[in-house]
Amino acid sequence: MEKTLQELAESVGGEAEGDARVRIKGVAGLKEAGAGEITFLANMKYIGELAATRASAVIAAPGIDVGGRPCLRAKNPYFAFAKVLKLFVLKRKLPGGVMGGAEVSPEAHVGQDAAIYPNVFVEAGAKIGDRSVLYPGVYVGEGSSIGADCIIYPNVVVREGVKIGDRVIIHGGTVIGGDGFGYATDGGKHFKIPQIGGVVIEDDVEIGSNATIDRGALGDTIIRRGTKIDNLVQIAHNVVVGEDSIIVAQAGISGSTELGHHVVLAGQVGLVGHIKIGDGVQVGAQSGVMNDLEAGRIYTGSPAYPHMEFMRMQAALRKLPELRKRVLELEKKLEKNTRTEE
Amino acid sequence: MEKTLQELAESVGGEAEGDARVRIKGVAGLKEAGAGEITFLANMKYIGELAATRASAVIAAPGIDVGGRPCLRAKNPYFAFAKVLKLFVLKRKLPGGVMGGAEVSPEAHVGQDAAIYPNVFVEAGAKIGDRSVLYPGVYVGEGSSIGADCIIYPNVVVREGVKIGDRVIIHGGTVIGGDGFGYATDGGKHFKIPQIGGVVIEDDVEIGSNATIDRGALGDTIIRRGTKIDNLVQIAHNVVVGEDSIIVAQAGISGSTELGHHVVLAGQVGLVGHIKIGDGVQVGAQSGVMNDLEAGRIYTGSPAYPHMEFMRMQAALRKLPELRKRVLELEKKLEKNTRTEE
Amino acid sequence: MEKTLQELAESVGGEAEGDARVRIKGVAGLKEAGAGEITFLANMKYIGELAATRASAVIAAPGIDVGGRPCLRAKNPYFAFAKVLKLFVLKRKLPGGVMGGAEVSPEAHVGQDAAIYPNVFVEAGAKIGDRSVLYPGVYVGEGSSIGADCIIYPNVVVREGVKIGDRVIIHGGTVIGGDGFGYATDGGKHFKIPQIGGVVIEDDVEIGSNATIDRGALGDTIIRRGTKIDNLVQIAHNVVVGEDSIIVAQAGISGSTELGHHVVLAGQVGLVGHIKIGDGVQVGAQSGVMNDLEAGRIYTGSPAYPHMEFMRMQAALRKLPELRKRVLELEKKLEKNTRTEE
Repeated sequence: MEKTLQELAESVGGEAEGDARVRIKGVAGLKEAGAGEITFLANMKYIGELAATRASAVIAAPGIDVGGRPCLRAKNPYFAFAKVLKLFVLKRKLPGGVMGGAEVSPEAHVGQDAAIYPNVFVEAGAKIGDRSVLYPGVYVGEGSSIGADCIIYPNVVVREGVKIGDRVIIHGGTVIGGDGFGYATDGGKHFKIPQIGGVVIEDDVEIGSNATIDRGALGDTIIRRGTKIDNLVQIAHNVVVGEDSIIVAQAGISGSTELGHHVVLAGQVGLVGHIKIGDGVQVGAQSGVMNDLEAGRIYTGSPAYPHMEFMRMQAALRKLPELRKRVLELEKKLEKNTRTEE
Repeated sequence: MEKTLQELAESVGGEAEGDARVRIKGVAGLKEAGAGEITFLANMKYIGELAATRASAVIAAPGIDVGGRPCLRAKNPYFAFAKVLKLFVLKRKLPGGVMGGAEVSPEAHVGQDAAIYPNVFVEAGAKIGDRSVLYPGVYVGEGSSIGADCIIYPNVVVREGVKIGDRVIIHGGTVIGGDGFGYATDGGKHFKIPQIGGVVIEDDVEIGSNATIDRGALGDTIIRRGTKIDNLVQIAHNVVVGEDSIIVAQAGISGSTELGHHVVLAGQVGLVGHIKIGDGVQVGAQSGVMNDLEAGRIYTGSPAYPHMEFMRMQAALRKLPELRKRVLELEKKLEKNTRTEE
Repeated sequence: MEKTLQELAESVGGEAEGDARVRIKGVAGLKEAGAGEITFLANMKYIGELAATRASAVIAAPGIDVGGRPCLRAKNPYFAFAKVLKLFVLKRKLPGGVMGGAEVSPEAHVGQDAAIYPNVFVEAGAKIGDRSVLYPGVYVGEGSSIGADCIIYPNVVVREGVKIGDRVIIHGGTVIGGDGFGYATDGGKHFKIPQIGGVVIEDDVEIGSNATIDRGALGDTIIRRGTKIDNLVQIAHNVVVGEDSIIVAQAGISGSTELGHHVVLAGQVGLVGHIKIGDGVQVGAQSGVMNDLEAGRIYTGSPAYPHMEFMRMQAALRKLPELRKRVLELEKKLEKNTRTEE
């Protein structure tokens, strides 16, 4: 496929600048791009590489000096890049239907043009929506449903009683609906609390590889529309994650904690159970959150503090060995003064 | 199924208070419960929700004011709740025997009423105990044994030479007996140490989803009776975890470290290798442990300190920017005093 | 198999000391070894156990007092132990060829003496090298290649467009080539960036269980020759890990970060994206790295500091509550002095 810069600009809602007839046949990074390719500048860290790029055109924000080369101007150049890239990605043609070697219960329902690969196992009462793809090794438990246009990558486990919306993507090895970690302890022995709730995953959610989202103890664990969850994330029983949130790799959320919408948890963040995180909260990498957090604010540290307070504490901590010396100096001086006075 | 409050109280060893004939047909949370359901108050954080519950009865500790509603009094209300809930959970009726599409070596042994799903692979010399269930995608390596009444969820990997006791539950995607991470480095190259030990998992252990428990290098990695391990936990080669311990999600234990019984590691805790953790030790979330820990104590922080010391350090750290100002003030005053005296 | 101490010494390039004719038939730990076994002392922490060992011989560095027992002297005793152990490990005889129940595309290529177990799925255009083993539940995507003499343990997922070298070992449940975590956000909605790059894993790499290595967004994610990666490690899109590096369990590396060769990341370390880690850098457990790190140095802490600076800060932090008291004392004295003077 080839498109002119003009066509691309129209497709993605940007403006072509310079030679709008230049023909583009692919997308690549600033360093890797060659003739016939378009590249992009979204992270200002890489602006120094712009001069040397061999790309035929560049996607950039208004006002960025692109040295006169053909340019697709867009207010959100990363978003424009995503849309351009999507134009050039060929949809893989997948085989359709239930393939030989898949085990689908006669009491399950498989939608139109869904693709069920060999070694998939679908239990009774399960529903697979139209055009959804289940790659080899996927397990779908009793009565669980997967919406339309979903992609479930190999070896994903969806236990019984899980409801998954439309256009959901789940990457390889992830387990949805494992039992929550709940025990009543009596006489030093841990007695398992049956975990009889389910999991609800709403439309347009994406979940990375080898993540774990436990089923609720009584009610449901809920991941709301548009939220994106990275690899190896742990979501415990009865957690609620609001809409359009971002949870980066290896973060963990303990039981019954509730996140608002547009929350961002950076990598390896941990949240204790039974707290509430306000809308739009951002938590820095490796932070440990022990209390409710106010909407719209940034928090960092383990334990987590408001970000500016954390920065002041860190700056002071760094100078703490020197502060100790100053206090010792003061003590000596005062001692001397006192002695002088005597 | 329906039971009177009196019957429930007798089943779980508590006492019915108020109308003991009220009929109960299910269990739900304080907010969700309706008529005909029993709820519970185990975490005092939720006592404010008690007044508004629509449940027909409540499980609570003696002395808690339940506003006159029918009550099942129990010293350990969470434990009573667990037992009541268990009464109401219907056992799923599973198909029995080795199902078509399972690959079980003729040299393996499968116990009575065990259920081996399609796409399970059991190697030669392996033993599966009576009434145990192996869900699709489970792999059991050569000579490994799984006891009676176990549940092994989909896509669990049990490598060769692993011994698993009775009533063990392993959730989806977990890998037991992967090679330990052991290399001898010579001339800058890492030379693999063959990992020829095994893994022993004793009775009544439960292991979450996508956890990893490595085989020993020479001897065994051992998880003792009654211990519960959460999702995404890493247990390295030759670790020993004592009885009735609790290891919360994303914690990691490095090689050859030994934990006593009733140890609790909170989420995302890390332990270095070759240390000993005493009986009953509790380690706070995200803590990093570098040394042996004394039995019965609580530790927090990275690096970990006795909990009270950590709290004092954190309190002082929080006031450090202010302390810096006070020291500057002192320096100015002393400077002034000294000058005055001159 | 039995060998004399002399034969072992010759095989591994060490020197026999004492009775070189003593016959050895196995290897075991200091505590566990009995007659006919050789043990080793590589970690000085265990030197106290040397006197009580019942082993017939011991591997130790020159100069270590082994109480006169037969000894295999080696400069790198751990490496010598690894080589001796390898001599005693019996190679399991694996069945060869594509076994019944495996699904291998007719457009895929399987090398000589490769073993493809049942429930493996290999897509069109994939190549499996000579003598490589794919255990049950492995998925190999379109056009991906696996070199010669590789071991791919059960339920590993290798997505499309992944290139794996020779002698690579990948443990159970690991996912190679999952989509990178990339979204362009516009109007509060997260728009998926197609992840069209691949993954390159060079020769002699080993990857633990349930790890995740994402495919590049545009270019490739690269793991260079000889690097060893532990369980549950997260490697994001477009990361480059240099040769002979060591990445311990549950560490995570964010997108586009580049590591030099011989880098060591201890357990649960986190690296932000778009930074460069110099050759030979070592990062302590649970550290959080936010900036480029200079080659050859050791860093610790979250945020990470040069190790000695971190140690000084921690020492000072530990005495901070006491420092606060000293400052209060100073304030009182100065107040008193000032009042006296007035």
